[in-house]
Amino acid sequence: MPGVPPTRFVFLGPEGTFSEQALKSVPAADRGVLTAARSVPECLDAVRGGDADAALVPLENSIGGQVGVTLDELAGGEPLMITREVVLPVQFVLAARDARPLDAIRSIAAHPQAGIQCRDWLRTHTPGASVVDVLSNATAAIGAAEGEFDAAVCAQIGAERYRLHILAKDIADNPDAMTRFALVSRPGPPPPPTGDDLTTLAVYISHDRVGALLAVLTELSVRGINLTRIESRPTGERLGRYVFFLDCGGHVADLQMGEALQALRRICADVRFLGSYPRADIHAEPPPRPAPGLSDADFADAAAWLRRIRGGETG
Amino acid sequence: MPGVPPTRFVFLGPEGTFSEQALKSVPAADRGVLTAARSVPECLDAVRGGDADAALVPLENSIGGQVGVTLDELAGGEPLMITREVVLPVQFVLAARDARPLDAIRSIAAHPQAGIQCRDWLRTHTPGASVVDVLSNATAAIGAAEGEFDAAVCAQIGAERYRLHILAKDIADNPDAMTRFALVSRPGPPPPPTGDDLTTLAVYISHDRVGALLAVLTELSVRGINLTRIESRPTGERLGRYVFFLDCGGHVADLQMGEALQALRRICADVRFLGSYPRADIHAEPPPRPAPGLSDADFADAAAWLRRIRGGETG
Amino acid sequence: MPGVPPTRFVFLGPEGTFSEQALKSVPAADRGVLTAARSVPECLDAVRGGDADAALVPLENSIGGQVGVTLDELAGGEPLMITREVVLPVQFVLAARDARPLDAIRSIAAHPQAGIQCRDWLRTHTPGASVVDVLSNATAAIGAAEGEFDAAVCAQIGAERYRLHILAKDIADNPDAMTRFALVSRPGPPPPPTGDDLTTLAVYISHDRVGALLAVLTELSVRGINLTRIESRPTGERLGRYVFFLDCGGHVADLQMGEALQALRRICADVRFLGSYPRADIHAEPPPRPAPGLSDADFADAAAWLRRIRGGETG
Amino acid sequence: MPGVPPTRFVFLGPEGTFSEQALKSVPAADRGVLTAARSVPECLDAVRGGDADAALVPLENSIGGQVGVTLDELAGGEPLMITREVVLPVQFVLAARDARPLDAIRSIAAHPQAGIQCRDWLRTHTPGASVVDVLSNATAAIGAAEGEFDAAVCAQIGAERYRLHILAKDIADNPDAMTRFALVSRPGPPPPPTGDDLTTLAVYISHDRVGALLAVLTELSVRGINLTRIESRPTGERLGRYVFFLDCGGHVADLQMGEALQALRRICADVRFLGSYPRADIHAEPPPRPAPGLSDADFADAAAWLRRIRGGETG
Repeated sequence: MPGVPPTRFVFLGPEGTFSEQALKSVPAADRGVLTAARSVPECLDAVRGGDADAALVPLENSIGGQVGVTLDELAGGEPLMITREVVLPVQFVLAARDARPLDAIRSIAAHPQAGIQCRDWLRTHTPGASVVDVLSNATAAIGAAEGEFDAAVCAQIGAERYRLHILAKDIADNPDAMTRFALVSRPGPPPPPTGDDLTTLAVYISHDRVGALLAVLTELSVRGINLTRIESRPTGERLGRYVFFLDCGGHVADLQMGEALQALRRICADVRFLGSYPRADIHAEPPPRPAPGLSDADFADAAAWLRRIRGGETG
Repeated sequence: MPGVPPTRFVFLGPEGTFSEQALKSVPAADRGVLTAARSVPECLDAVRGGDADAALVPLENSIGGQVGVTLDELAGGEPLMITREVVLPVQFVLAARDARPLDAIRSIAAHPQAGIQCRDWLRTHTPGASVVDVLSNATAAIGAAEGEFDAAVCAQIGAERYRLHILAKDIADNPDAMTRFALVSRPGPPPPPTGDDLTTLAVYISHDRVGALLAVLTELSVRGINLTRIESRPTGERLGRYVFFLDCGGHVADLQMGEALQALRRICADVRFLGSYPRADIHAEPPPRPAPGLSDADFADAAAWLRRIRGGETG
Repeated sequence: MPGVPPTRFVFLGPEGTFSEQALKSVPAADRGVLTAARSVPECLDAVRGGDADAALVPLENSIGGQVGVTLDELAGGEPLMITREVVLPVQFVLAARDARPLDAIRSIAAHPQAGIQCRDWLRTHTPGASVVDVLSNATAAIGAAEGEFDAAVCAQIGAERYRLHILAKDIADNPDAMTRFALVSRPGPPPPPTGDDLTTLAVYISHDRVGALLAVLTELSVRGINLTRIESRPTGERLGRYVFFLDCGGHVADLQMGEALQALRRICADVRFLGSYPRADIHAEPPPRPAPGLSDADFADAAAWLRRIRGGETG
Repeated sequence: MPGVPPTRFVFLGPEGTFSEQALKSVPAADRGVLTAARSVPECLDAVRGGDADAALVPLENSIGGQVGVTLDELAGGEPLMITREVVLPVQFVLAARDARPLDAIRSIAAHPQAGIQCRDWLRTHTPGASVVDVLSNATAAIGAAEGEFDAAVCAQIGAERYRLHILAKDIADNPDAMTRFALVSRPGPPPPPTGDDLTTLAVYISHDRVGALLAVLTELSVRGINLTRIESRPTGERLGRYVFFLDCGGHVADLQMGEALQALRRICADVRFLGSYPRADIHAEPPPRPAPGLSDADFADAAAWLRRIRGGETG
């Protein structure tokens, strides 16, 4: 129900992954019930079906890029709405059943993405170990806990949950790597504007128009709407057909965003509004200052002027 | 007063010019008082000062181009508003005090523009006559009536007023030449939309932005606003500084025109709204069909969609 | 003949006008023969027909705007090429047959444009005089010399030629007003680039394409070509059909101008190249610095890079 | 060496994957030596180091989207060049050690992507089986061959290699699904233009310019360059920083592509040219007809015209 904070949460499991860690940073989750789901579709179907009020799913990673399954699920099926973003630094640990010297480690379980993100560290500090691909960070932790592997690359929360000993912290090669998650609910009025919001859209481009993506960007640009993310996903129909995911600076309640959304609605084959929500603090860069003529005040002044000239005043 | 038809009209004189002829095609002028003024500024000052309700002044000619003084007067001074356009075919006559053979004519008075527009005809039919520049079409007619010149190039109405004999009709080289006039009043609510209207603007471009004219055209183009006229005039400050006069298809009350006007208000140094009024029938070409996404229905649909998603519906 | 300086010059007469004054500022004119012609078409036909090597004609005035007849003549007929621009401050004088007090003057002859440009001065200093329209500045001077009028508004050179006494100098209301003239020759290789040149074009826009002017400006903008002037003229066919005159910063020999000209050639109904020539010093504002990626060096670097990758190098 | 067909090929293994099947469709591979590598980076490093002449790696899938690791490898490290694309229909088979009824199958090994692409088929035809994620299609086949799982979802070539019995063919839910592969070599002159080519670029956008992606698309659009693919990848620096992969219609040797590449070189932070190569036949849609002014002939005509006017001719 709009206005009522969610109490039943679902996250991309298994327990001990970054998704659980991200969900725990959401205030309302403190007092809620948290359940792991086996896949992103399962998370979102729990919300769609009413078994959960909100789902926490990964959107993108600054190293690995888009999380295709989440994007595809948000673009298709019963509509859902993002009400919050959570951005989490990617902080991998190397963990084992017990304290041991690094040069005694022979096998390390890691999700392929995790292995890639820690490659240099592992080469330098565990040159004698072979890295074995497994299907999730939590699977890696479980494998180490059960003794199948000497050690695991996993999240801090995973090491804790499976009672592993942390051999090294912060082993990601890029200390600034981050993952971005979305808290997703059934459709409802978006949270009120804060002055620093994002609006997420899935935009289908008509194939009858040359320059259709150019047209979309022009509609945003002329209204001073800044793009912080653009991702393409195949629509599944055939190669060369895409849906674009746009994260735009601003809120659906803003004058300029309202104009821009109407324009995309008019010129695109389809637009799915996926929510307006506060920008997470962790984005280091503040939104750029609007160019001349594109501030909130400029839009308000222009609206007042139009009312005057429509009424027969001289402007 | 808005809604009350004008009764006191002023036109660019002297009597017997095309401006008087154009004014007589305005229905309300039948029952009104018509006065000639000596110049365009005098015409418009009569309206500004309340001595007349409406002025009929020339805007442009399909051969001679813009009528600079009218544009300058509309862009500057107390604001005025165009409520109607009148488009008149340019039909020059050759007239004299009495019937005489063309080869007996030695001197012909003509306004320089009229001389240019009838040059081929005069060369062919009055090869032995010299053409003398005078300051208006009516001055030419008066000169012929007073015997100063053997004949005059003038408007039909001028020949009639000064009791001249018409030696030849339709002597303009280009039979499609037309002059466009504006009926101008003090500001007030524009006439209601008819579905085929024009909106005239004077747009000052800020010199701090490269590509400012490109930006103006982009704002119109993305909203499907068609331009039927664009004229530049120097602002008088220095070479290279211009004000642009735009005639745009559509009415200030339209959704798309409202958006476009707000955009110009935001990005331009100044915009003066000069009126929305019905397009004259004589424009042979109908307005082009709007491109996909740019029809009135598309704009209305998009506005309704925005209201739904702002309210928390799924669109 | 290319490379040979012109020796026979023609200018828009009569003698004593600003055009003669402008021509005298051209170095080669010192050693040449100068002839007055009665009209702009006559000036240009003298060059076309080989009776003169170059013609000096007015292009635009910072108060009065475009000189339509010059533009029309350059866009049509046998091609001609601008090889030099001359920009002249508009400095009107009030002159009479002999010295006399201003309050003794009852009639003043003035070209209508000159009357407008000196209106405030005349109202203040000769409030008792009536201003009579005449057909040129030189006609005004002649009228004063012959005693038809008490005084004339004219150019300094006109007062000198007709041996008038100068009653007042610099009487134009706007002290910065300027007129811009073009020196026009038969087609030939343009003068070499100086690093601060202008290129003038007449561009006909195809009526089959919506947004055609937008397309033209985009082609210039993406290549960093700055516009210092844009004028529209009716093509004479019908209202709403225009040819645009563009003055662009740069020289036809430049890489970026070459690209832009090819683009206009491709997308416009017709383009007439009217010359590349040095910018006159009197333009107070230097050309703006090119934006990132749009300097001469950027264009040269990109051309070298393309050659490398076409040859199979890695760039 | 340019011009010498490659003889030593490497593909993304293990043997029995779609990459091997794709490589076998390359004519030169018939007479070459084919080696499997364990990862995309290993494939490409074999080429970079000279151990192989060409590598066959996946670029994108019409269901799963971009293959991030390939894009990242092509954008970074020692430059490489795509010389050919191979597009392969995705045709999954269900295979087992021996013929058995579908309802006897309890466990099915599948790469997660394969599982997703066959989800509906598996739900309908093997409702009683659990699908187990494994790390590659070949791993699935090996697992079935070794009896670890009852069956595998894999490529036809994988079933053959591991001597599996094919229980069902064409089990992908979307019969039009395709995967696109690139044949990659060390830099050299691209294959000659065929009239229907693609050019692949990695484009880094400078963060100092608002609207940078808009600028890139505009440069392509004004030159009639069609985009068949646009993908964004994080640069790894931080969220919100992207490199764009563009597949453009045309060849680096074309006039218009040459102009567009130079423009991107100028305005982008960096551009990596990744090759010009013939478009694969399997793209069902032919390239769109160029808009007016954008055909090869238009570009050639404009170049000839520019040469004429630079030489002093009238065009």
